[in-house]
Amino acid sequence: MIESYGYAATKSYNKLRPVRFEREGLRPHDVAITIQYCGVCHSDLHQVKNDWGNTVYPCLPGHEIVGVVDDFGVEVQGFRKGDLVGVGCMIGSCGTCASCKEGLEQYCEKGFLGTYNGPIEPDGRNTFGGYSSNIVVHEHFVLNVPKGLKPEFVGPILCAGVTTYSPLKNWGVSEGDMVAVVGFGGLGHMATQIAKAMGAVVSVISTTADKEDDALELGAEAFILSTTKNAMDELKGQFNFIINTIPDKHEVDPYLELLARDGSMVMVGVLVPEPGWNQQSMIMKRRSMAGSLIGSIEETQEVLDFCAKHGIHPKIELVDIKDINSVFKRMEKKEIRYRAVIDMKTLDHEKSIQQKDLGSIGH
Amino acid sequence: MIESYGYAATKSYNKLRPVRFEREGLRPHDVAITIQYCGVCHSDLHQVKNDWGNTVYPCLPGHEIVGVVDDFGVEVQGFRKGDLVGVGCMIGSCGTCASCKEGLEQYCEKGFLGTYNGPIEPDGRNTFGGYSSNIVVHEHFVLNVPKGLKPEFVGPILCAGVTTYSPLKNWGVSEGDMVAVVGFGGLGHMATQIAKAMGAVVSVISTTADKEDDALELGAEAFILSTTKNAMDELKGQFNFIINTIPDKHEVDPYLELLARDGSMVMVGVLVPEPGWNQQSMIMKRRSMAGSLIGSIEETQEVLDFCAKHGIHPKIELVDIKDINSVFKRMEKKEIRYRAVIDMKTLDHEKSIQQKDLGSIGH
Repeated sequence: MIESYGYAATKSYNKLRPVRFEREGLRPHDVAITIQYCGVCHSDLHQVKNDWGNTVYPCLPGHEIVGVVDDFGVEVQGFRKGDLVGVGCMIGSCGTCASCKEGLEQYCEKGFLGTYNGPIEPDGRNTFGGYSSNIVVHEHFVLNVPKGLKPEFVGPILCAGVTTYSPLKNWGVSEGDMVAVVGFGGLGHMATQIAKAMGAVVSVISTTADKEDDALELGAEAFILSTTKNAMDELKGQFNFIINTIPDKHEVDPYLELLARDGSMVMVGVLVPEPGWNQQSMIMKRRSMAGSLIGSIEETQEVLDFCAKHGIHPKIELVDIKDINSVFKRMEKKEIRYRAVIDMKTLDHEKSIQQKDLGSIGH
Repeated sequence: MIESYGYAATKSYNKLRPVRFEREGLRPHDVAITIQYCGVCHSDLHQVKNDWGNTVYPCLPGHEIVGVVDDFGVEVQGFRKGDLVGVGCMIGSCGTCASCKEGLEQYCEKGFLGTYNGPIEPDGRNTFGGYSSNIVVHEHFVLNVPKGLKPEFVGPILCAGVTTYSPLKNWGVSEGDMVAVVGFGGLGHMATQIAKAMGAVVSVISTTADKEDDALELGAEAFILSTTKNAMDELKGQFNFIINTIPDKHEVDPYLELLARDGSMVMVGVLVPEPGWNQQSMIMKRRSMAGSLIGSIEETQEVLDFCAKHGIHPKIELVDIKDINSVFKRMEKKEIRYRAVIDMKTLDHEKSIQQKDLGSIGH
């Protein structure tokens, strides 16, 4: 067993509180990682609040993890002690279904095992994420951090990065494509940089006027306030591809109308039922809407390498883990620019304070 | 001027009544056609009832037209007197926009000119369709009927046929694909035959139990009642492609869930706002929804040739034009199996009865 400390919502969501627990020891293919940083994803907030109705408490979030290999099982070949590595949204999948065999673990037909809140398997065991001192993960789900990426920038690439990279790649975005990024938060500010590096002409559409400078700095050719009807009208039919990162229920028609003929809008942020849409607008220009879920392990490695190669990194705010509850509140008010990242060194002093003991959890 | 007779809703929809009017004479590229048969499309009913809010009265419907070339303008090279020809949903487009230049007139950026209710141009002139004795159409929009297709079968191919052929081709349906046809009416029964001839394994999903024999006869491997929850549950995740031909507002989730990973559902029948959908279901399997509008002139010629080659034809019921109002009523009750086609010979005796004179209309 490996002793762990972290922050969790223990029985229901009120706030996260310091906890201690034990992770199971190394199996032959496992890698034990001492966590250095963990990004704070909007889904962490959704999940602890049980917005999707599937949260199992205790809920210890965090799936934008970077750290150093501390130990590894006897069968592990690809990692050595001290390697800088990442863990993203998944730490397991069946490995035998069609999607897994194609290397698309995120679409595992039995459901992938989430890095946290992962009780997808029949035995219902929970998983605890990266708001903690360490994690033990099968080597298949451990990413190599390429040289040139600072550790504190890695976490957001593992979720916000791959979630936008995967559809941009899958829908074939390339040189000269007109791409709109809708929503300019954690996902949107990564999508902007990635699409730009793929050669697209990127426009950012946001509700927040004072994000314009950042959008332009990160490579957008244009910044449009979605609340300005005239500006939105001028964009109708202009985009081949829209990546819609809005994380909450919203009307899609104002964005659908911005697609050119045969254009696609892929929604990556919203996981709740959407209101209706104008089917006539979809028919009249053969427009598509689609969803896309994070990305595969292969794509996650690709986007890490892609970001290192193109000098792309998130804009982050390093935070102290004891401030996590106020970070969540600021996230709800859209005050984070653009990703909070917990510096896990700040967890050390927490070890001495009153801890809720969660007992042991399995792999 | 060319004297014409037909059936139209004159001021608003109550019922269609016999009318006479004059079509303008031949321009250099026009073909004058004596109409033999005209299919009765569900959109005819939507349009005369002003279900889409854009109907201009008098409204003389019909865009599944087949007939014989009676005369042609001085510049026409491709047609001779007596040729059997078809006219589908469009009789004009700008010819200069990107879509027209790509041969996708149905997506003309200025709006194509509809065969009826076509007042899309700035001068607002109306067009009268095929529930009439003759029509005058620019040669670009006149289709050649291949040998081997009986004239009475041609009309439904020009709308129901191409509207399903175009997305099946555009989304690359081919050998071994699992395809579901949702809705088994005029469009659905054509989609079934066309998808089957493309090599797909076709399932038909319908609300009407006694259509099963017809579905199987036309090539479906399976017939599923959409009202049977167990049967629908068993189909979840089974289809690469769904062509949804339901002509009215409906919940899409029960069908969206039938898509396999990366599957697409294309909606071709509904032109009104749709209710919400389960975005989580779309994300979790990278599913897409799209719209598709009829088909291009090139595709319309292709589907005529494709149907002739594969021995595909609609199941029709020949009707007398004086019964058109009861045909509409039976269509609303889903009693037509599967396409009513007006035998225009039945218009002759109408010429002697009291006619509403609509005056002349332009090209």
